[in-house]
Amino acid sequence: MPERYTVSNYLIDRLLDVGVKHAFGVPGDYVLDFLDHVVASDLQWVGTCNELNAGYAADGYARLNGAGAAVVTYGVGGLSILNALAGAFAEQVPLIVVSGAPPGRRRETGAMVHHLVAGYYLQLDVCKQMTADAAILTDAGTAPAIIDRVLTAAITQKLPAYLELPLDVALSPCARPGAFAEPTPAVSDPESLEECVAEVVALVDAAEHPLVLAGVDLLRFGLGEDALTLIETTEMPFATMLSSKSVLPELNPQFVGIYQGGWSRDAVRAEVEAADCVLSLGVRRTDLDTGLFSAVLDGPRVISAAGGEVRIRRHYYREVELGDLMRGLAAAVRPRSYLSSHPASGDRFARPFVPEAGVPLTAVRLYEALDHFLDDDMVLLAEPGDAFCAAAEFHIEEAENFIVQGYYCSIGYCTPASLGVALARPRKRPVVLTGDGAFQMTAQEVSTLVRLRVPALIVLINNDGYLVERKLHEDGLYNDIQTWRYAELPAAFGDPGSVVGCRAQTEDELETAFDTAAANCDKLVLIEAVIPGRDCSEGLERLGRAFRAAQPKK
Amino acid sequence: MPERYTVSNYLIDRLLDVGVKHAFGVPGDYVLDFLDHVVASDLQWVGTCNELNAGYAADGYARLNGAGAAVVTYGVGGLSILNALAGAFAEQVPLIVVSGAPPGRRRETGAMVHHLVAGYYLQLDVCKQMTADAAILTDAGTAPAIIDRVLTAAITQKLPAYLELPLDVALSPCARPGAFAEPTPAVSDPESLEECVAEVVALVDAAEHPLVLAGVDLLRFGLGEDALTLIETTEMPFATMLSSKSVLPELNPQFVGIYQGGWSRDAVRAEVEAADCVLSLGVRRTDLDTGLFSAVLDGPRVISAAGGEVRIRRHYYREVELGDLMRGLAAAVRPRSYLSSHPASGDRFARPFVPEAGVPLTAVRLYEALDHFLDDDMVLLAEPGDAFCAAAEFHIEEAENFIVQGYYCSIGYCTPASLGVALARPRKRPVVLTGDGAFQMTAQEVSTLVRLRVPALIVLINNDGYLVERKLHEDGLYNDIQTWRYAELPAAFGDPGSVVGCRAQTEDELETAFDTAAANCDKLVLIEAVIPGRDCSEGLERLGRAFRAAQPKK
Repeated sequence: MPERYTVSNYLIDRLLDVGVKHAFGVPGDYVLDFLDHVVASDLQWVGTCNELNAGYAADGYARLNGAGAAVVTYGVGGLSILNALAGAFAEQVPLIVVSGAPPGRRRETGAMVHHLVAGYYLQLDVCKQMTADAAILTDAGTAPAIIDRVLTAAITQKLPAYLELPLDVALSPCARPGAFAEPTPAVSDPESLEECVAEVVALVDAAEHPLVLAGVDLLRFGLGEDALTLIETTEMPFATMLSSKSVLPELNPQFVGIYQGGWSRDAVRAEVEAADCVLSLGVRRTDLDTGLFSAVLDGPRVISAAGGEVRIRRHYYREVELGDLMRGLAAAVRPRSYLSSHPASGDRFARPFVPEAGVPLTAVRLYEALDHFLDDDMVLLAEPGDAFCAAAEFHIEEAENFIVQGYYCSIGYCTPASLGVALARPRKRPVVLTGDGAFQMTAQEVSTLVRLRVPALIVLINNDGYLVERKLHEDGLYNDIQTWRYAELPAAFGDPGSVVGCRAQTEDELETAFDTAAANCDKLVLIEAVIPGRDCSEGLERLGRAFRAAQPKK
Repeated sequence: MPERYTVSNYLIDRLLDVGVKHAFGVPGDYVLDFLDHVVASDLQWVGTCNELNAGYAADGYARLNGAGAAVVTYGVGGLSILNALAGAFAEQVPLIVVSGAPPGRRRETGAMVHHLVAGYYLQLDVCKQMTADAAILTDAGTAPAIIDRVLTAAITQKLPAYLELPLDVALSPCARPGAFAEPTPAVSDPESLEECVAEVVALVDAAEHPLVLAGVDLLRFGLGEDALTLIETTEMPFATMLSSKSVLPELNPQFVGIYQGGWSRDAVRAEVEAADCVLSLGVRRTDLDTGLFSAVLDGPRVISAAGGEVRIRRHYYREVELGDLMRGLAAAVRPRSYLSSHPASGDRFARPFVPEAGVPLTAVRLYEALDHFLDDDMVLLAEPGDAFCAAAEFHIEEAENFIVQGYYCSIGYCTPASLGVALARPRKRPVVLTGDGAFQMTAQEVSTLVRLRVPALIVLINNDGYLVERKLHEDGLYNDIQTWRYAELPAAFGDPGSVVGCRAQTEDELETAFDTAAANCDKLVLIEAVIPGRDCSEGLERLGRAFRAAQPKK
């Protein structure tokens, strides 16, 4: 370890400045000097089994922590993590990827060094397309300003960023940083804001049945508190969407449910679409959030605020930030008393799970049991597939207790992401709800959960392959996968005394498994829930019907 | 399944035309229509646990079969496979990636569909940078010509290719193909060839100690037979390199060894560098093949032929193809009798392994035992790290019996690649020599080996983490990994009756394990060889010393 202060030190200090306390990744020779600095610093190193999993872990960490970092080597590492970087871009997560690289003298001659693909700028070019900002740190003189610029872009835009650190620059002496210039949040134009708030207040006050539709930007930009104040002050009913689920507390009596256009529960759809004034806040029109674009999000009754812009009928306000708008509205909109007057809410609380002995488990009963099992000290991560269709209807009270890739939908994300969740929220238990196909993608990361003694609970739905594909399309043998002995797997990854594996085929076996999980809250527990016969949640049935209807005709 | 002939049918028929009989991949909704066509065709579908592993499997398949294919869904699949595509580009392997995609009507409106990252051309743009050719099939009218063009580029240039098949085009009716126009190999200019051959013949004939240095292009372009004729006719001694190892039979008495500049065994280096005429054929100057650019590959004694060009001293011949040159030389160079006169060859054959009971296993003894165990019905895949350093010195007789990523060096490649090797060469047994860190990267693909009843032998060197990093650099805690119970893992992936796991800590346990592997030639066998104390091959020791010496000073 060099005594002098280097570019590596600077980068580490700035990562700490933006709140990153853990770095996930895999070593490789181009990044070992940087890693020497990491392990000598306050930034805790968390090695993972491969780079994609490191990216997923850092993404899960960033969602709760405000930013996350993954460190990889050049080429083989930088290109292996790309799908995680892409997911973070699509999902607006400030994941910072640091890649080692060959030294400048190799880059300048174009030498054929190991891990090189097709030129020394390829990795940067690719990463630029899926980040807020990306750069190679080519010398110690410019590195500090570039590091500050790139990190600031990530945390203000809530998007990933990429920094490439050549071997020689990692060791170059560098000036120590001053205080990190806290990024200034976007500000509203005062006159636009004032006029906009006045118009929206008039529209909401004049409406008989106004409703708030809370979108994913509220979650990503940390605006849940402002939204909560608005709905508590005005007592308007509110709906959320799959990707924004849990941004507002779901036990609140004004909560209508998850709106997904034609995929919604009938009562939710009816109430949202009957509202005569919809305040759409931070909604992104993705196919899954809009029920394949069937959601009614336009027309004169919808006031749409997102990305600094507010649209009312055919006119727009610019430079009106969501947070400012919500605070303005909370202070001026007349309060209502909707507490008992909106009809759509289903069961306000999760139903108790009373097992019937010997009765084979069904999907619906598994989900009822898990919904009942969850509490405020657990963070649920739901995989794309039947898991996120079912979990959409779970009763989640705290914004940070639900993690989903509701847009990018990369299966295999949740198991590694639970590692990041555990380190960002060490007092909470990560609970992964995953299918067998999704689990197999990234299963080795269970070993890192075991190594770090993360007491995750993995609920693995063994439904015999890629169930979601079977529901969206005619079935084919490509949906079949190898049946693992899932409950035995955790013990193969390390100390069998620190893990528990259970298999449940009946309702009482499932209850016993959840009891075991509760009793072993210091251990990793994997419950294999066997759901035969293509059984699934009602949510996936609805989604499957809509998808099949929308496919090109053969 | 539609009755009519579609673009999907066309693409499948052309893949069959270029010799691809298996397609590896993972389903996803954008590619299900294409997969319906695949499972109804003669192209055999091989599902893998994730897309990166599909890419590695198809790469292993392509190396022996001439071309390989992987099929993935959009975004999450296309970006997960990128590191395999990059590896195929760096290593010159015709891996054809087919990705499903949203239909044209979504692309035209820019709709936010699931799995989309940042625009509908991002995946194509990225893939273009690491393929011979890449295209989106936007309509059925142009698709046939584009498919033919892209596949031809892959198989003539021995580089990967990318085809993106939108949902709607996959189902579009399409004309049936005519006969596939066999790609015409590059041809030499007759006059350049004649003059060049004459000059080279004169130089070789005048030399006292000429030597052939056989590079990786001979392997990739299938020129091993021509090279063998040349060395058999002329009786010149020959050396190979790490990436071209096995292109010429290593039991041949003219075989000098593996030349890697300053990393070579001393006797090999001495003989290659003492030659007064080196015929360098198809050599690529990568850092690993050249011993960090220490190999002596320039100067008046070196005749260098590669990429259609021949260099002699300061002049060049263009349009002289390697195959034509070798055939011309074989017919004209005067024969020598080197059978007993060149000094460098080490042991001509693998030494018998005679275990000492109870003696703890060392790296050197493990490698001696494996070298002895291998026969011509086995294909060895060696991971980057101590595995490929040690395996470089193994005695391999057939070109197709050794697979290595000698340039791109992506750890985790070999386990999935062995699946492709098994399907390309069903009569041979794949033998994977891997480290524990490399194995953990892609370990789940053992389950696909189990599912397809591939009787692979996995020799896992448990040396307690990333040994190669410990040797190249000062050690750090980032090199530590979780210790798995490796021998128990295969049974967790399926039917325990079809797998065998053994653990060997002593020489006699290792012999027993190899005996078990031989006796269970119809089963997947995993041998965990425990090598404590940072012990490694002499090859890795040499590599580590050179790397440390070349690093920037702190």
